[in-house]
Amino acid sequence: MGEHMHDYTVVPRTDEEKAKTLNRLKRIEGQVRGIQKMVEEDRYCVDILVQISAIQSALKNVGYSVTERHMNHCVTDAINKGEGEESIKELMAVLKQFSK
Amino acid sequence: MGEHMHDYTVVPRTDEEKAKTLNRLKRIEGQVRGIQKMVEEDRYCVDILVQISAIQSALKNVGYSVTERHMNHCVTDAINKGEGEESIKELMAVLKQFSK
Amino acid sequence: MGEHMHDYTVVPRTDEEKAKTLNRLKRIEGQVRGIQKMVEEDRYCVDILVQISAIQSALKNVGYSVTERHMNHCVTDAINKGEGEESIKELMAVLKQFSK
Amino acid sequence: MGEHMHDYTVVPRTDEEKAKTLNRLKRIEGQVRGIQKMVEEDRYCVDILVQISAIQSALKNVGYSVTERHMNHCVTDAINKGEGEESIKELMAVLKQFSK
Repeated sequence: MGEHMHDYTVVPRTDEEKAKTLNRLKRIEGQVRGIQKMVEEDRYCVDILVQISAIQSALKNVGYSVTERHMNHCVTDAINKGEGEESIKELMAVLKQFSK
Repeated sequence: MGEHMHDYTVVPRTDEEKAKTLNRLKRIEGQVRGIQKMVEEDRYCVDILVQISAIQSALKNVGYSVTERHMNHCVTDAINKGEGEESIKELMAVLKQFSK
Repeated sequence: MGEHMHDYTVVPRTDEEKAKTLNRLKRIEGQVRGIQKMVEEDRYCVDILVQISAIQSALKNVGYSVTERHMNHCVTDAINKGEGEESIKELMAVLKQFSK
Repeated sequence: MGEHMHDYTVVPRTDEEKAKTLNRLKRIEGQVRGIQKMVEEDRYCVDILVQISAIQSALKNVGYSVTERHMNHCVTDAINKGEGEESIKELMAVLKQFSK
């Protein structure tokens, strides 16, 4: 589903990097469940919107950290191999979606 | 945690409205878990970013539908009681956060 | 170009409201010209991006103030006439575009 | 005003690149003036919001093209000199502001 075909070697994440990202995603998962409970309990719309904003902000931060890592590893590798332009084009396409 | 103190009566959601919103939130929860799996499996950063964008877009849609319902019920009620201005101020504050 | 057909009476802006909004828009116009100068002078991309962000933020604020005024006047009038739902639907459509 | 101190050499834009960017910025300047006229003429709020959205979208596109150029020149140069990490950090900071 929307997966990219590419030959770039993925630089494996360190265990610490993985743990940090997974923690953030688990917290986001918990926040999404929290909103489900708010809907079930007929909580005030504005309070629900505040929580949705909090999740969006947390997701953006995960996205930024994935993007920064991607530039420091995959894009940097591609540039060193002289294949920077294509890698940058790919990144720009996803950044455009991301900042919508 | 960021909850609003207010006297507005919350118009209870119908069972159908609840079910629809809960379904969307459960799908979003599943998508967040999907990203966790992608991180664990060291999947390509750009593919992860694409999935994060998809969740953001789904969350925004939930936010819009909560906002529209809020305007049709709570804000409309407040306006009918002559207390529209305060209700609109409250909504604007959350919309500013939301569209960040 | 994208203009809406509608029967809503537009509540005229006071001279003060107009002057305030026009001042903000004139400042934004000046900022856009400032960026043109930066491009002509081959200024550093990141400095240009910082200025673009500043304009976006200023434009958003004009948008929020137009939205709040719209809710306090046009939407409130529509609700008082029992035509709220349509007016809210119209506003939601533009908010979705706006927060893209 | 918010200018960065840096040693990166700015790769000069070609005349064609400049002309293209300047054209887009001039069109945006015209759009901003168009909104001023709409405010003066007491035009419908929603029509004004639609025009503001159009400008935001046009500005974003200028921002993306400046960002892509920045990555293809300045960031790529920095990476080739082994100074990529700092350059990427600088870009991330501005992207975070930009997608707010």
